[in-house]
Amino acid sequence: MRNIKLTIEYDGTRYAGWQVQNSHKSQVTGHNLKTIQHEIETALYKMLHKKIYLHASGRTDAGVHARAQVANFRTGSRLTPDKLRIGLNALLPEDISVLEAEEAQEAFHSRFSAKSKVYRYTILNRSAKPAILRQAVYFYPYPLNLKLMRKEARVLLGRHDFKSFQAADKRKRGAVRRIKRVEVKRDKEFIHIDLEAEGFLYNMARNIAGTLVEIGRGRFPEGSMKTILLAKNRKFAGPTLPAKGLCLLKVMY
Amino acid sequence: MRNIKLTIEYDGTRYAGWQVQNSHKSQVTGHNLKTIQHEIETALYKMLHKKIYLHASGRTDAGVHARAQVANFRTGSRLTPDKLRIGLNALLPEDISVLEAEEAQEAFHSRFSAKSKVYRYTILNRSAKPAILRQAVYFYPYPLNLKLMRKEARVLLGRHDFKSFQAADKRKRGAVRRIKRVEVKRDKEFIHIDLEAEGFLYNMARNIAGTLVEIGRGRFPEGSMKTILLAKNRKFAGPTLPAKGLCLLKVMY
Repeated sequence: MRNIKLTIEYDGTRYAGWQVQNSHKSQVTGHNLKTIQHEIETALYKMLHKKIYLHASGRTDAGVHARAQVANFRTGSRLTPDKLRIGLNALLPEDISVLEAEEAQEAFHSRFSAKSKVYRYTILNRSAKPAILRQAVYFYPYPLNLKLMRKEARVLLGRHDFKSFQAADKRKRGAVRRIKRVEVKRDKEFIHIDLEAEGFLYNMARNIAGTLVEIGRGRFPEGSMKTILLAKNRKFAGPTLPAKGLCLLKVMY
Repeated sequence: MRNIKLTIEYDGTRYAGWQVQNSHKSQVTGHNLKTIQHEIETALYKMLHKKIYLHASGRTDAGVHARAQVANFRTGSRLTPDKLRIGLNALLPEDISVLEAEEAQEAFHSRFSAKSKVYRYTILNRSAKPAILRQAVYFYPYPLNLKLMRKEARVLLGRHDFKSFQAADKRKRGAVRRIKRVEVKRDKEFIHIDLEAEGFLYNMARNIAGTLVEIGRGRFPEGSMKTILLAKNRKFAGPTLPAKGLCLLKVMY
């Protein structure tokens, strides 16, 4: 059996996420919703005539995009990785693209081998709503104090209990994570919030982005990030920003 | 009467263009197709309760985008330009956004006052199809010789008869235009072809882009651009690339 590693770009707009969460599935209709994982597994089945299970570096939520999600699967097929990539791209819908396919080492696992992941939250910060990039940004029309956002963001660096930034309905025992890098940068009308961590809690990136916007617009004062972090209570943090602004940029191995 | 100048961004994907050409209209069903001009005029009618005629800097074709189209109209309304902008953006569909509204001088006309326009043709040049930007780029997966494309593009600079790059079914008497600037540049996986001219012929930007791709991939040899230009015959130029790669970047006054 060969172990094939795929690097995948997708526009998450039409999907219920990489994979449907069980709770989510039952809440809606009990039927399967469209997921990126299912689309790729279906395409693999058409090519290889075998049921394939795809392991991703992690789930992305409904509406969240990826520039380079990583997933792997095992197959006895002799198709070269490049033929697999070309075949998959011919079969996949237009909003999912396999950027790379390569043979990985036997022990490689997209999730367990990952050293860290980089998520980017993108805010369009100008007075008029976005037309061209409306599915890929969160629109915020008022001034934001980037200097303060940067200063407060640095508080997040390192190992902390991020309970305050975890979705309130999640009761995972451990909320300790390590943020290796956080950057808040402006590129013309866009503000990018880049977060690199070994692992993320559910909604963590969107809740951190929401908190930084509250700080940037002056609703949360200087020093808030530390207070919120220490409170270990979701109620103190800012709102969960919309999924469409979030993109999984990279997975590091 | 005040003269209001609008700067407009739109995603042209869903539209038959800025305005439907008469020939186009009759070819299809005789019914009106969705146009950007019509959407904005309808929104203006809702706000001002008067029929407004919007003059644009020029038509853009079906599927072509704009980052900053300019259009103007006259109104007796006392609404401030900013209120007009905010009202329009609330009424317009999500793929059209008014970036700016300002009062222009009495004599200002979006088309006749324009000094030049900048169009950008964007090619995604990598091995895998685009997922996220699939509506805004032309996908070309094979190597392109940018150095040669740049050299050949320079032949286009200045005043020439661009008949070779005009849509074959158009029989305008004069095809002489002046290209003020042409740039072929790489930005990571993207290649941008920027063209600035006082005026463009129908399909001119897409035909020039198509010719440059033929040169870049080696199908047209060095020196072709001059031969094609002098031939004054559409048959010699490259194909008309898809509308989705084209964007009206800017109008200069």
